[in-house]
Amino acid sequence: MDIDLNADLGEGFGPWRMGEDEALLEIVSSANVACGFHAGDPVIMDRTVRLARERAVDVGAHVGFPDLLGFGRRPMQIDVAELATYVTYQLGALAGMARSAGHRMTHMSFHGALGNMAAADAALAGPLVRAVADFDPGLVISSSASRAIEDAAERCGLRVARTFLADRACDDEGLLVPRKLPGAVIHDREAVLARVRQLLEEGTVASHGGRKIAMNVRSILVHGDTPGAVELARAVRGVVEAVGRVVPISRQLA
Amino acid sequence: MDIDLNADLGEGFGPWRMGEDEALLEIVSSANVACGFHAGDPVIMDRTVRLARERAVDVGAHVGFPDLLGFGRRPMQIDVAELATYVTYQLGALAGMARSAGHRMTHMSFHGALGNMAAADAALAGPLVRAVADFDPGLVISSSASRAIEDAAERCGLRVARTFLADRACDDEGLLVPRKLPGAVIHDREAVLARVRQLLEEGTVASHGGRKIAMNVRSILVHGDTPGAVELARAVRGVVEAVGRVVPISRQLA
Amino acid sequence: MDIDLNADLGEGFGPWRMGEDEALLEIVSSANVACGFHAGDPVIMDRTVRLARERAVDVGAHVGFPDLLGFGRRPMQIDVAELATYVTYQLGALAGMARSAGHRMTHMSFHGALGNMAAADAALAGPLVRAVADFDPGLVISSSASRAIEDAAERCGLRVARTFLADRACDDEGLLVPRKLPGAVIHDREAVLARVRQLLEEGTVASHGGRKIAMNVRSILVHGDTPGAVELARAVRGVVEAVGRVVPISRQLA
Amino acid sequence: MDIDLNADLGEGFGPWRMGEDEALLEIVSSANVACGFHAGDPVIMDRTVRLARERAVDVGAHVGFPDLLGFGRRPMQIDVAELATYVTYQLGALAGMARSAGHRMTHMSFHGALGNMAAADAALAGPLVRAVADFDPGLVISSSASRAIEDAAERCGLRVARTFLADRACDDEGLLVPRKLPGAVIHDREAVLARVRQLLEEGTVASHGGRKIAMNVRSILVHGDTPGAVELARAVRGVVEAVGRVVPISRQLA
Repeated sequence: MDIDLNADLGEGFGPWRMGEDEALLEIVSSANVACGFHAGDPVIMDRTVRLARERAVDVGAHVGFPDLLGFGRRPMQIDVAELATYVTYQLGALAGMARSAGHRMTHMSFHGALGNMAAADAALAGPLVRAVADFDPGLVISSSASRAIEDAAERCGLRVARTFLADRACDDEGLLVPRKLPGAVIHDREAVLARVRQLLEEGTVASHGGRKIAMNVRSILVHGDTPGAVELARAVRGVVEAVGRVVPISRQLA
Repeated sequence: MDIDLNADLGEGFGPWRMGEDEALLEIVSSANVACGFHAGDPVIMDRTVRLARERAVDVGAHVGFPDLLGFGRRPMQIDVAELATYVTYQLGALAGMARSAGHRMTHMSFHGALGNMAAADAALAGPLVRAVADFDPGLVISSSASRAIEDAAERCGLRVARTFLADRACDDEGLLVPRKLPGAVIHDREAVLARVRQLLEEGTVASHGGRKIAMNVRSILVHGDTPGAVELARAVRGVVEAVGRVVPISRQLA
Repeated sequence: MDIDLNADLGEGFGPWRMGEDEALLEIVSSANVACGFHAGDPVIMDRTVRLARERAVDVGAHVGFPDLLGFGRRPMQIDVAELATYVTYQLGALAGMARSAGHRMTHMSFHGALGNMAAADAALAGPLVRAVADFDPGLVISSSASRAIEDAAERCGLRVARTFLADRACDDEGLLVPRKLPGAVIHDREAVLARVRQLLEEGTVASHGGRKIAMNVRSILVHGDTPGAVELARAVRGVVEAVGRVVPISRQLA
Repeated sequence: MDIDLNADLGEGFGPWRMGEDEALLEIVSSANVACGFHAGDPVIMDRTVRLARERAVDVGAHVGFPDLLGFGRRPMQIDVAELATYVTYQLGALAGMARSAGHRMTHMSFHGALGNMAAADAALAGPLVRAVADFDPGLVISSSASRAIEDAAERCGLRVARTFLADRACDDEGLLVPRKLPGAVIHDREAVLARVRQLLEEGTVASHGGRKIAMNVRSILVHGDTPGAVELARAVRGVVEAVGRVVPISRQLA
């Protein structure tokens, strides 16, 4: 069993740091790198893609709303055709940083409120996924379970690597429970590890509503910006290695 | 005689417009497109590269300081290694917009204060031009006469298309006279056209100090954001067509 | 009959201009000045308040979402307690610019999507209006008809100057019809003037749905950023002066 | 002997934190609060001024260049008349936040590159200090030793509270040694405390060049964003309390 370990990195801005990028880059096999809209700047992007290249970690664009103040977590109602150009811009920026650093961009994912909205709304997912395909039909979309994203990708001939967010509750359709609702974020370390084990062993996950739902994924997302995050990521890697191998998406799909 | 006609386009931001992009795209053979740092945004970049593609106009990245408030015209002292990553980011963003629109990016130029500083300082020009080469060694640098830029480009194996700014005074070395000095901008239409004629017929230009200096260029830059700009651009095109042809840089160098 | 003539001014940003501020300042009796979040910057704010002071035009803060790219016209879901601090910040910035220029800030209004959302949602209007009262209980809120705003203001002891948007359709409750809907903006000059006449003579307005509804206002808002805007504003002033006087809100309420 | 203990606070932005604000607010008697240009945002400003009010800590505006990416530490060449409006805007924003929180703004200081440039250049200090006086002639300017600032303040009738930066080297004129030069920042805790003791006991400081120069101050600045900063600040407070009292500037000057 091959599983990608994925993290959101490069989430600082200017003088401000967030997360334990260096430590996580020793653990994960792929990184979603913020592109300057909700976080990230050229200096941080450059450093992150160079570190990733040295560690043979895949890099992808983490595409978000233009809202540094709100870290891309606040829903914005933006005309979808305009939003598609924001996606293209961010893809281009990260692809350029990767290229200049001797690395390459293999995937992308939607961040925060943009990710939640696109995952739940086919009218949004369609044009945004089309923008990804227009930029590079070889890119993989990394996404938590979403019918809207997966259908849109299929129509464009794009591949999706479904991702399991080990510390986030999902509903009966597998969609993430919004961050503000109680129980949306799972803080208990052992509960997170148990979820990963169940996923790997049974291919299922317990939904927020208590049902056991099937969940077939290529990737597990670990977080880097919470206390104990690095230790937890290492433990998740241990769980994966007990039953399979950590393999980046790009090599799973090669 | 083949000459490129070049303009700075896409210099609006959000709801704000600047210049007569549509009209100029009927006149010029290449456009430098702002990339969101000193002007420009994804929507404007997308529209500009699509219009340019339809008219077979070359597009390049117009790379500037991160200073929307000052339109990139205010000198900023930024660590040159950091500045190089700003260049890469902007190149990537425009290249991505072009690629998604079915066009391609052929060149780049430095805007405003960044352009003036790089043109006059080899310590700046070196790493910035190296960033261009690292991104894409096939890009052409469009620049007014500058020993610093041309030397740096030669060391990186990059080609430079020297550009004549028809309405800007230059000093005895051919460097632009800073915008704030008296006489830096030539407002008289006939004087501008006479300068173009002299350039094309004699390969010379009268410097700000009154000397006649040799000026060998591949391109003439016309402006789009001053009153009468479109008419002047059309007249410049007429002068060029009286003695030669308007040919984009990429075809001159093909 | 005393009526204030009001306009949104100072809506440029950095090098970009919008609207005919100088001309409108000769016509209106009060101005809502953008504060840097959706438009406006310190240089423009300073110039606008100085011109207003010279013409004895009232100035108020035009408070919007932090979204220059979208001109504050895109709904954003921001925690209301955080949003209240954005309101305070903008009030302080404009009050400071006015104070330094020897003028004073008499009122405020909510711009664009923030204005539409607050006008329609008491849960938003309450804390935002409270933020206005906490900053300065003497400020007047300039607002198109809104039960939510007016109730919130009454609870805080703030005065509201209800404003008639001459070129914008309203529904049967007097709320503005969202800009994207057909017929929301009235482009016909004579129709706009006829609406002003009916308002002044009968105290009524025809709603978008065709009903005649009562509309009691202290102020009429004219726009400055559309073709023919200045002429239309002058014509509206003529209509007002045929039946009454143009008097700024602050003097109506003094 | 009464000495103010001063710190730069509120230097986060959006989701990003910097420094140990809560801990420092238990130690200092005055705080310079970032105003959104080089750091800080309305939410952080509001929280900081409320915490300061509860602890009877003076608040002032920490006014900087519009450069979040560079944290206001990169010199920018901005027209001084425009820069003066940036100062006014920031003063107004913080004064408004303080007023709404039931506190008041007592002072201001110039941050980073703006501070260094104004301290060294009378042509800059003059108009910027004038902008402070135009906003509120009762404000105190908190500044490290600078002839340019002090002369400008005297001409405007403003009071200056000279501040000693315990961990920064100064030259023979008392001006700060630029951060990039070796030895500019004093990292050794005991050396910092020894400098404070010498200042309090002798009224002198050893310059970077090794001379003993007179230094008469009302305030000592402690930093909050370096490892061990809180402990050091507490130790500085201990040194002060051994020979005098910690008293905010506003009460020293009352």
